Amino acid sequence: MKITMSEGAGGNATAKLISGLFLKYFNSPYLHEMEDAALLPDLGKIAFTTDSFVVRPLIFKGGDIGRLAVSGTVNDLLTRGAEPKYLTAAFVLEEGLEIGILEKIVASLQKTAMEAGVEVVAGDTKVMEGSGGLIINTAGVGSVACGASLGARAIEAGDCIILSGRLGEHHAAIVSERMGIDSEITSDAAPLNKMVGTLLENGIPVHAMRDVTRGGLATILNEMAEVSGKEFLIEEEKLPVSEEVRSFAGILGLDPLYMGNEGKMAFFLARDRADDALELIRKSPYGEYAAAIGTVGDAATGGVILHTAIGGRRRLGPLYGEGLPRIC
Amino acid sequence: MKITMSEGAGGNATAKLISGLFLKYFNSPYLHEMEDAALLPDLGKIAFTTDSFVVRPLIFKGGDIGRLAVSGTVNDLLTRGAEPKYLTAAFVLEEGLEIGILEKIVASLQKTAMEAGVEVVAGDTKVMEGSGGLIINTAGVGSVACGASLGARAIEAGDCIILSGRLGEHHAAIVSERMGIDSEITSDAAPLNKMVGTLLENGIPVHAMRDVTRGGLATILNEMAEVSGKEFLIEEEKLPVSEEVRSFAGILGLDPLYMGNEGKMAFFLARDRADDALELIRKSPYGEYAAAIGTVGDAATGGVILHTAIGGRRRLGPLYGEGLPRIC
Repeated sequence: MKITMSEGAGGNATAKLISGLFLKYFNSPYLHEMEDAALLPDLGKIAFTTDSFVVRPLIFKGGDIGRLAVSGTVNDLLTRGAEPKYLTAAFVLEEGLEIGILEKIVASLQKTAMEAGVEVVAGDTKVMEGSGGLIINTAGVGSVACGASLGARAIEAGDCIILSGRLGEHHAAIVSERMGIDSEITSDAAPLNKMVGTLLENGIPVHAMRDVTRGGLATILNEMAEVSGKEFLIEEEKLPVSEEVRSFAGILGLDPLYMGNEGKMAFFLARDRADDALELIRKSPYGEYAAAIGTVGDAATGGVILHTAIGGRRRLGPLYGEGLPRIC
Repeated sequence: MKITMSEGAGGNATAKLISGLFLKYFNSPYLHEMEDAALLPDLGKIAFTTDSFVVRPLIFKGGDIGRLAVSGTVNDLLTRGAEPKYLTAAFVLEEGLEIGILEKIVASLQKTAMEAGVEVVAGDTKVMEGSGGLIINTAGVGSVACGASLGARAIEAGDCIILSGRLGEHHAAIVSERMGIDSEITSDAAPLNKMVGTLLENGIPVHAMRDVTRGGLATILNEMAEVSGKEFLIEEEKLPVSEEVRSFAGILGLDPLYMGNEGKMAFFLARDRADDALELIRKSPYGEYAAAIGTVGDAATGGVILHTAIGGRRRLGPLYGEGLPRIC
């Protein structure tokens, strides 16, 4: 059996590889929680996470692999209620990479780190054969306030599900670049510190968050439904999608529910504060198009149900097959 | 200007890329210390580091990329006096990688983590085009006892320099595999927790340590001499090198001083406890062939001087040119 692109798409095949191989050997309970960052209580309560970035092209409309590398790791720390503090940045350069391009990416990485209030404190550089490509890994640590234990296990029946903005923009931007399509769609890659910070500072009872990346909203909701053992009810007509992405997806036969973002967060929070939360998110950077998209049901079935725009109900599964593996 | 293999060899070209490009943008004082791990005092005093591993072949005599990925990051944490605690492991799989090979490597990584007493708490999996290769990044955090601040800046004139074992074994093992040479030389990749732990527990006044990796002993000594502003005097005839590596290097025109190891530490410590330290290292795992190889001089020239076996003195520079970039 050999690895195919499907194992990298963030959907069903990725999940199978993780549970069938990695989790078979790595027996840490922190890892088995299946969250985006580990909470480590014995080291003064820190959160710890990692992500490698292999996106092609390296620079695209609205961002680049450097901005992505900070945003992805910062957003993963935020999902556990941590304040992102320090990053490592490890570069694997392919022979033939233009140093001018590398410099642009490093500058962008540092600019995004400053925006996110994190400091790059350690690094590594390796070179391998190839054709001018670049892979970046960032790992991050953040500090967690006492008492916080955000995660899918804390999701409660009745919770409101809020999505912080419009679906599919990063995915559509990368597909456009790859296919040479002249499109106005820009990537949404961004660190969401201020958005998350404003909710926590205002005492909004957030139970869980997850950034919407590979595999899209449908996939991350399925992962969270499985871990929480709850059923999520999503209203299709409330899902925010721009006109541009809508028509782009239509032409190419893509489904915005399975298209990745890099600057969108799904929040699960107590229903009685949902209106306050929505207002705070909409006023924060990158939150203009936030919407309440559904609720957590009572049924302990652990799935995702979509109420369609024409009144139907269907079970929404995780991504199957390839998707677009190298969007991040 | 394009990246070449030289930038990955860990020598002069790597240093130039780091100081000329990365340090130009990343302005953290922790990064500018040029140590193998950052000490972060505000998060309950933790050490934080990262390394990517791109070695070919993936499995070699004495180890594999998984064992290397744990050993390298654990040893980097140890150099700052930290107790390694948690690792992240991020896998970039190339399409076509045999899942059986991946499983062997994951099993070895976990086995080495258990040997080193660290827990893999977070991970990531990506897939890219390629020819069945694999890149692993590990980041690590460790806890630092109050008061410890090991590093090249703490090196003092008069310090004894101890090398924990024989030079060049990992490098020679990888070259053998690549060239299809039938050799008995095995990689020394190993986590050195017990060796370092026994010195610190016994109150040996260690001022600095550095694991001997890319670029070999000569290169890491040059880096430390520059940071410390001290001159190191190395006795060539005291350098431990096995008969096998000696003849291997001779035949291929390699210099053991520039050949990388993955399980050797150079210690700088107070001279009056050097004999005790040597005895403790020799009794600890992987320390059998430890030797006192030199001293720190008074001259504030920041260089490395080799006293040769035939009575000469010469300045020992860092690695220039290619070396063998993909040994780790």
